[in-house]
Amino acid sequence: MKLTTIAFDADDTLWHNERFFTLTQDRFADLLSAYTERDHLDERLLSAEKRNIGHYGYGIKGFVLSMVETAIEVTEEKVPAHVIREILDMGRDMLRHPIELLPHARDAVVAMAKSHHRVVLVTKGDLLDQERKLSESSLRDHFDAVEIVSEKTPDIYRRIFAEHGDGSERSMMVGNSMKSDVLPAIEAGAWGVHVPFDLAWALEHAEAPEGHDRFRVLDNLGQLAELVGEIG
Amino acid sequence: MKLTTIAFDADDTLWHNERFFTLTQDRFADLLSAYTERDHLDERLLSAEKRNIGHYGYGIKGFVLSMVETAIEVTEEKVPAHVIREILDMGRDMLRHPIELLPHARDAVVAMAKSHHRVVLVTKGDLLDQERKLSESSLRDHFDAVEIVSEKTPDIYRRIFAEHGDGSERSMMVGNSMKSDVLPAIEAGAWGVHVPFDLAWALEHAEAPEGHDRFRVLDNLGQLAELVGEIG
Repeated sequence: MKLTTIAFDADDTLWHNERFFTLTQDRFADLLSAYTERDHLDERLLSAEKRNIGHYGYGIKGFVLSMVETAIEVTEEKVPAHVIREILDMGRDMLRHPIELLPHARDAVVAMAKSHHRVVLVTKGDLLDQERKLSESSLRDHFDAVEIVSEKTPDIYRRIFAEHGDGSERSMMVGNSMKSDVLPAIEAGAWGVHVPFDLAWALEHAEAPEGHDRFRVLDNLGQLAELVGEIG
Repeated sequence: MKLTTIAFDADDTLWHNERFFTLTQDRFADLLSAYTERDHLDERLLSAEKRNIGHYGYGIKGFVLSMVETAIEVTEEKVPAHVIREILDMGRDMLRHPIELLPHARDAVVAMAKSHHRVVLVTKGDLLDQERKLSESSLRDHFDAVEIVSEKTPDIYRRIFAEHGDGSERSMMVGNSMKSDVLPAIEAGAWGVHVPFDLAWALEHAEAPEGHDRFRVLDNLGQLAELVGEIG
């Protein structure tokens, strides 16, 4: 059964993202170094992010709100207002950072479009920010559809693969997150292709579905066309 | 030419929204009453929202970030951290407020679905928050499609009316915002139906396109079925 739809994750699959979160978290730790140890701060921030994800969803704005909350918490309400202002500035910097495509990202997307697959972008995060990045990436025209979703569940993948192609059976999801890109796509009946990235957010961790016949791992996107050719 | 697609705005068209922003803004003014006059505060907040809309887009998270920024600004960096914490709490309260449908909202959506129109929800705001409200409204099943968009431009309406129906010519957009719902839908070639709501955000203000043959005003959604029947 021929593959007809290839879906790509965006952040840390096609372009850098986690790096900007990590750099911002370093600046956040510097700002608060007089009040708390780095390890403790990282732990409190992660715990705020976990607590807030159901309210804020994914993306930079929620991350900034969680940093502000954590700054107040770890300083026992002693954080000066100018530190909060700097956190807001850091958030706006993230929202304007230039897009840097990952190696082979452009070639992989273009190759899939040229080989007459339906090519779909499936991403979480802030709506406007993801649209900005896609538009700056100059990849927009190679996608047949763009789906910015609040969560990547098997049901969401089923809907996307039904709407943009011939259903999950004939679809593939390619991404750096085992938890959001690979596992739920496989559960929906599609191929799940993991392209690991060297930085990963703790909330995106999950175990690999070793031995599953629709699970594949690639070192980089330069190997995608060959894999798709093999599957047929 | 028969109308085939009816699109509804969500906030302050189908359910209350601006009321929660207004109540929160009142609490915000109380919190900062020792530092600044109400009028001045409202003006600074609106100006922060305008400045930030290109970064944050629409929705509660951006509103909270603009409130925090304004609190720092009007107090000349003297705002205590516990006030910032209360602003974050107010934001989370907004993100969990229960949905209250407006009069005739349910009947209007159900009537359009029963009369075999394609029924589409078109809304701005935070992705997760709009999904939550739609799901709580129990109207989800009556919509053929849901479009959560970062901006409501004529191009966006053209795409939506092409995707979910037979194009703008045979479509109608119903909403409380002249600027976001009525004018760009008319510019796209669709019918634009204004259902004014008694509270309106200053950034949504625009003049009515008086005399335009595809512009209509309704007192409430109870009059929609009749209007759609007349247009045919």
